[in-house]
Amino acid sequence: MYKVDLNSDLGESFGRYTLGMDEKVIPLISSANVACGYHASDPVVMDKTVAMAKAARIKVGAHPGFPDLMGFGRRNMSVTPAEAKAYVLYQLGALYGFCKAHGVEIQHVKPHGALYNMAAKDYGLSKAICEGIKEFDSGLIVLALSGGELIKAAMDLGLPVAREVFADRGYEEDGTLVDRRKEGAMITDEKEAISRVVRMVKEKKVRAVTGKDIEIQADSICVHGDGAKALEFVEKIRKAFGEEGIEVCPLDRLG
Amino acid sequence: MYKVDLNSDLGESFGRYTLGMDEKVIPLISSANVACGYHASDPVVMDKTVAMAKAARIKVGAHPGFPDLMGFGRRNMSVTPAEAKAYVLYQLGALYGFCKAHGVEIQHVKPHGALYNMAAKDYGLSKAICEGIKEFDSGLIVLALSGGELIKAAMDLGLPVAREVFADRGYEEDGTLVDRRKEGAMITDEKEAISRVVRMVKEKKVRAVTGKDIEIQADSICVHGDGAKALEFVEKIRKAFGEEGIEVCPLDRLG
Amino acid sequence: MYKVDLNSDLGESFGRYTLGMDEKVIPLISSANVACGYHASDPVVMDKTVAMAKAARIKVGAHPGFPDLMGFGRRNMSVTPAEAKAYVLYQLGALYGFCKAHGVEIQHVKPHGALYNMAAKDYGLSKAICEGIKEFDSGLIVLALSGGELIKAAMDLGLPVAREVFADRGYEEDGTLVDRRKEGAMITDEKEAISRVVRMVKEKKVRAVTGKDIEIQADSICVHGDGAKALEFVEKIRKAFGEEGIEVCPLDRLG
Amino acid sequence: MYKVDLNSDLGESFGRYTLGMDEKVIPLISSANVACGYHASDPVVMDKTVAMAKAARIKVGAHPGFPDLMGFGRRNMSVTPAEAKAYVLYQLGALYGFCKAHGVEIQHVKPHGALYNMAAKDYGLSKAICEGIKEFDSGLIVLALSGGELIKAAMDLGLPVAREVFADRGYEEDGTLVDRRKEGAMITDEKEAISRVVRMVKEKKVRAVTGKDIEIQADSICVHGDGAKALEFVEKIRKAFGEEGIEVCPLDRLG
Repeated sequence: MYKVDLNSDLGESFGRYTLGMDEKVIPLISSANVACGYHASDPVVMDKTVAMAKAARIKVGAHPGFPDLMGFGRRNMSVTPAEAKAYVLYQLGALYGFCKAHGVEIQHVKPHGALYNMAAKDYGLSKAICEGIKEFDSGLIVLALSGGELIKAAMDLGLPVAREVFADRGYEEDGTLVDRRKEGAMITDEKEAISRVVRMVKEKKVRAVTGKDIEIQADSICVHGDGAKALEFVEKIRKAFGEEGIEVCPLDRLG
Repeated sequence: MYKVDLNSDLGESFGRYTLGMDEKVIPLISSANVACGYHASDPVVMDKTVAMAKAARIKVGAHPGFPDLMGFGRRNMSVTPAEAKAYVLYQLGALYGFCKAHGVEIQHVKPHGALYNMAAKDYGLSKAICEGIKEFDSGLIVLALSGGELIKAAMDLGLPVAREVFADRGYEEDGTLVDRRKEGAMITDEKEAISRVVRMVKEKKVRAVTGKDIEIQADSICVHGDGAKALEFVEKIRKAFGEEGIEVCPLDRLG
Repeated sequence: MYKVDLNSDLGESFGRYTLGMDEKVIPLISSANVACGYHASDPVVMDKTVAMAKAARIKVGAHPGFPDLMGFGRRNMSVTPAEAKAYVLYQLGALYGFCKAHGVEIQHVKPHGALYNMAAKDYGLSKAICEGIKEFDSGLIVLALSGGELIKAAMDLGLPVAREVFADRGYEEDGTLVDRRKEGAMITDEKEAISRVVRMVKEKKVRAVTGKDIEIQADSICVHGDGAKALEFVEKIRKAFGEEGIEVCPLDRLG
Repeated sequence: MYKVDLNSDLGESFGRYTLGMDEKVIPLISSANVACGYHASDPVVMDKTVAMAKAARIKVGAHPGFPDLMGFGRRNMSVTPAEAKAYVLYQLGALYGFCKAHGVEIQHVKPHGALYNMAAKDYGLSKAICEGIKEFDSGLIVLALSGGELIKAAMDLGLPVAREVFADRGYEEDGTLVDRRKEGAMITDEKEAISRVVRMVKEKKVRAVTGKDIEIQADSICVHGDGAKALEFVEKIRKAFGEEGIEVCPLDRLG
């Protein structure tokens, strides 16, 4: 029996602003990346999100980002390693506040947006992030881009890791994602996307944009809940997984 | 032997901005109220502040405030109880992040500025704050205005409490502080301030602005480290305490 | 021929967050209150909003609020008069930046949310707001609650005013709005709401919650564009106005 | 007679936080770069700063930065050209609000920190900044690094420019500043720094870090008011200028 985690970013609403269809996507996933108030979310939203995740018995992870609400944490910022580490500790602790109140354990940490992308390419930044995680709780799973620097740094520090893959993105031969500005960056055909992700889980392989097959480890698949079409796609993935003998289960039960 | 705690607000710097002489006041106090990033501070400052408190072996408490950096948390805000509770959990958790990393326990929670003042007069707000604290850790000591509503709410919820008094403030007959806009609000004579605080600790009494003696419980005295004069005043208090047989010790060793 | 302005709050999106159906409500109104980045909006949204208003040939006004993005400017804050005045100048100037770039004139200023509500009851706060407006441009129309303190302060300072009424709110005998927590606060029947507002415009009268008719001046009616139902209601108002001989025109052409 | 402007960053305090000795440096400079609330400052500080500059009869310029208060606008952020342009318009307008209220004209615009440094090397970003400035007021002087891309973009758009030089920084042969991490980045000897800046003004030359003389245009010199030593250094520069026949005058009277 094959196993894989489905993760999604949750709790990204803020104050008067609603984002995402969290109630709809929660029943379809096994792990939730909960925004922590820097790139999105606020304490009231975090409280509600942790409660919803608990009620649905899915696992909760911290989703720390850059302090850039206006840019939704999607803009690169040249922070120092000490800043990155402190930002992770702050947001991880803040989420812990709500998890403690609700009797929920934090399963993992997945950086958000530009922090995720920068870390995937920058070992020094990744190391700083992992030091923050390790000093908080060395049992937390680091969820990051399969093949990226954050996975490497986490392993070097002895943290458990989970490698994330994307159903709708093209891969280069070296395992990195094809730049969004280049051809082949997005897999727009849904059937192809699903068969690719099934293959990644079962064969640990994916066809790179060059046409060559490469090896890839898929512990978790990132899905979205920000629209009706995105939700339908998740349901199709789940259906395919059922037919292919792939069980959806959270990161801490993959091993 | 009499015992009393000396507490001070620490870690109120932010980014490029420095506030307070934390290194100078730390050796003089027993408990530090550490700002948590809402009315003041940032993750880098919090990390440094917890490290400094640990090195000096003084106790650390959370100092949550309103999300009003521009007003330093000193402006009343009409938040709902659910918001107040969530803001406390968020900030308490964030501080816990750094305490966990440094192997330091959180001793107490003291709301900041307008949140402190509003809570002292508003039982509903106080109850919401205490619910947040209790859900996080029911052993945390609530440090609040002696005789105020926050002390009452904390006791009703079964939380340990510590009653704070002010050396330099006048008291009404009902134990509340004299409004700053009224005569007698401030005790400007240092000797008088010190003898008042010594009497509060030893006799559990203070002379109200009306001239009548009232009863008061003094578990902790709030002191400041934001200037040379403030620091000198703390040293004078400590000297007087030494002469009067009053030992300075943190909240968790008062009982 | 009767004339009245229809105003609506626009440009309340922020970064990744979308709020309101601005494109849909713009063709139905004559004056837009544009958020200025404190309680809502950001520079990119402001730029787009001013461009849209210009293209639709509706008038633009500043909609300054409290610096409380998390609370959408709906929470009372105890700011000083100097702070209120400076906040108005800052936001008014910021909007002017985009109006200047697009060759659009600012027609009016309408405070937002808690600032609007507090000003309606607080002459001192209203005076501070009006001083900011006057120092910027003494020709700007102050749009505020009919019968409130902000209208009084604006008139005392010699600023042009426009009195705002609400179709869906009940009135007390003294002309103030019925508190939302009391019965009669909301007019839920659409037909009744429309006939009330038509009467306010044509007869300058409205039936108070007590049953007594009171006098009221209606220069502008506040409408909403945050949902399909709200938009339908505006269309019904416009239809009724057409049948009743009431022309919709911006504030600066009412006189 | 030689002429040069002395500019300094002012109004960088924020809420409870004080930064810089503005009152002390104002009498020594001819042009003030006033922070606009993004990387530093708030509306009350801006109001006070414009009033102080007016009283001292020095010229006022806008000092827009990235929306990164926590990082004081010193961290690179990957904003889009549309965002950069809108941020400039927002901050320029906001400052205009206070200038209008005080009857003061804006003389120039000098981007702050990371925005200044990124613009100096990025023509596209510089163009976006200049478009914002031009749409607001095509008579505003763009104050930027001598030889940098922002000067080029401003000239290409027909905006007046002023080239800034640094007394305490080393230059590469191509006119760019020596990277702070490299040897020769800082001129630590005060006498040398002053003689270098005098030569830049009088001979339009400076010795590069390689030992070779290069040409440089010095319309304005950046000085600091954030400490006693910095203030003394400005006084020494002024004294040297007096002896060398160099007149200190604002940017708009250089030509």
